[in-house]
Amino acid sequence: MTVRTLEWVDDHIDVVDQTALPQWRRVALRTVDDVVDAIGRLVVRGAPALGVLGALGVALAARQHADGDLDAVRADADRIASARPTAVNLSHGVRAVLPAVERGPDAALAAARQLLEDDALACAALSRRGAALLRERVGPQPMVLATHCNAGALACVDWGTALGVVRALHGEGLVRMVLVGETRPLLQGARITATELVALDIPHRVIVDAAGPGLIATGAVDAVVVGADRVAANLDVVNKVGTYGLALASARAGIPFVVAAPESTLDPVAPDGVAVTVEERDGAEVLQFGGHRVAPAESTALNPAFDITPADLVTAIVTESRVLHRT
Amino acid sequence: MTVRTLEWVDDHIDVVDQTALPQWRRVALRTVDDVVDAIGRLVVRGAPALGVLGALGVALAARQHADGDLDAVRADADRIASARPTAVNLSHGVRAVLPAVERGPDAALAAARQLLEDDALACAALSRRGAALLRERVGPQPMVLATHCNAGALACVDWGTALGVVRALHGEGLVRMVLVGETRPLLQGARITATELVALDIPHRVIVDAAGPGLIATGAVDAVVVGADRVAANLDVVNKVGTYGLALASARAGIPFVVAAPESTLDPVAPDGVAVTVEERDGAEVLQFGGHRVAPAESTALNPAFDITPADLVTAIVTESRVLHRT
Repeated sequence: MTVRTLEWVDDHIDVVDQTALPQWRRVALRTVDDVVDAIGRLVVRGAPALGVLGALGVALAARQHADGDLDAVRADADRIASARPTAVNLSHGVRAVLPAVERGPDAALAAARQLLEDDALACAALSRRGAALLRERVGPQPMVLATHCNAGALACVDWGTALGVVRALHGEGLVRMVLVGETRPLLQGARITATELVALDIPHRVIVDAAGPGLIATGAVDAVVVGADRVAANLDVVNKVGTYGLALASARAGIPFVVAAPESTLDPVAPDGVAVTVEERDGAEVLQFGGHRVAPAESTALNPAFDITPADLVTAIVTESRVLHRT
Repeated sequence: MTVRTLEWVDDHIDVVDQTALPQWRRVALRTVDDVVDAIGRLVVRGAPALGVLGALGVALAARQHADGDLDAVRADADRIASARPTAVNLSHGVRAVLPAVERGPDAALAAARQLLEDDALACAALSRRGAALLRERVGPQPMVLATHCNAGALACVDWGTALGVVRALHGEGLVRMVLVGETRPLLQGARITATELVALDIPHRVIVDAAGPGLIATGAVDAVVVGADRVAANLDVVNKVGTYGLALASARAGIPFVVAAPESTLDPVAPDGVAVTVEERDGAEVLQFGGHRVAPAESTALNPAFDITPADLVTAIVTESRVLHRT
């Protein structure tokens, strides 16, 4: 991607509307309400991007309370940080900018922009490290990789985590095929990851999420690489619902299951995955499609957005500065 | 269900159009072309129902070649038997009626109708046996069950296999909740199983397929019960794609993973699951929804309809006459 997923332009935050993909549309977030709404509706999603948006959102709040009402800025910051509960990056981004707010709106914006640049650098670094790990474990022949949801440039600023690893391997001619879980209910895989792979000219096939474990069992997949929304102190990984099934299948098939995430996704406060709040989203996301009801009117849905992959199923967690694993 | 999924009426086969559910619509299959088309488009689906449709289809062919052209009937029978490759019941149903064809169209129809009645009895019997097994393993408190795809009355004649077990347990007050995997790409869970559960007044929640393993890991599910499209000689189970992930999660959580299927689903000729042809369906089922493209135009899909669950992950296979398990 030569464009950035989100950036500061003049007096507002400019973002790719990820609900519209594969159609490209950018929208302007001009108020804190806009920011909170964009997070809730997944206009912006992906743990690293949420971190940057949290930071830019606080900068926006500081600008709008340029009279110096710090309490009002802090109240806005709280609203932003709690717009979604699971990705730790969001509150991390908010907290990173808050101290600068006391020095005025320009200082807040500078701090937020620094976080944005740091994210871009972190993703590039962890992508190289993840690629090196997979080259060593699976290579040197071109490999079939499976991924889930979107942990690409559109989940970050301009490079990506799991898809950054894929992109780095592709640059070395080491990607034969990427299997992309469509990622129900909101289809971030089919809509967003596939769009990025098309742009990068990387061969790929979209699969229904339920097909991932069975395809891994056939021996068709060399490694799985995914992002994370939060990594607990014991290295349990909280990521998009469906990740756990891929990890179970990878362990049984004996292939690497690699998590690519910046250090800002690590949460030393949560002792394990069970301690992390898993967001439950509106059942209508499951029961309707494009405004059309697919289930009977009397039926309800259960719609957890994430699941927990225990650390013993994770081959490695790759960050911009290190490789973590339990054993 | 007080109506039958498929039956012989006057001079044709009358079936519920399962592509239209949750809207109810019956269609008449008047020619062998109609039958082959109905199988290919999943107007009729579900292993036991396919067996009965195969039988009725041969009876229809015999009637249309009442001049006694047995070669023409056999050619029609071959077309029907090969309309889908994975469910063994289809060819089983066709083969069961072929010997009667030599005695004329009425004898063929009588044989097909006998198979239909046998299916109804078999499902009722295996449902009682499966319910007894789960009552013993999980009960006596009301349980949370998870299922996938549709192995209910609409997959059979008028009772169901996996959903027959649920129905029998519900009759004893032993079902607290059923979690139904929506079953992408064609949503047989959200559209068909949920419709049956509404009709039976059984509490249920629809989930995306990717959520099943993670919910099992939280301890929220007491047992998984599914149907099968083919059971190999070593008791590997071939069933709707997504079954394998539920089996992996069940094994790790230590909960029963039960397969409910009539004896006609057992295939002693296939030594193991890997020997069974897994149907690959059109990628458009994944890439489009309701005629609306969800992935980029340049993307393609891989769309296996089934996966293989190794026998060591299966707690028990319950048929109308016995309980099978590997260990």
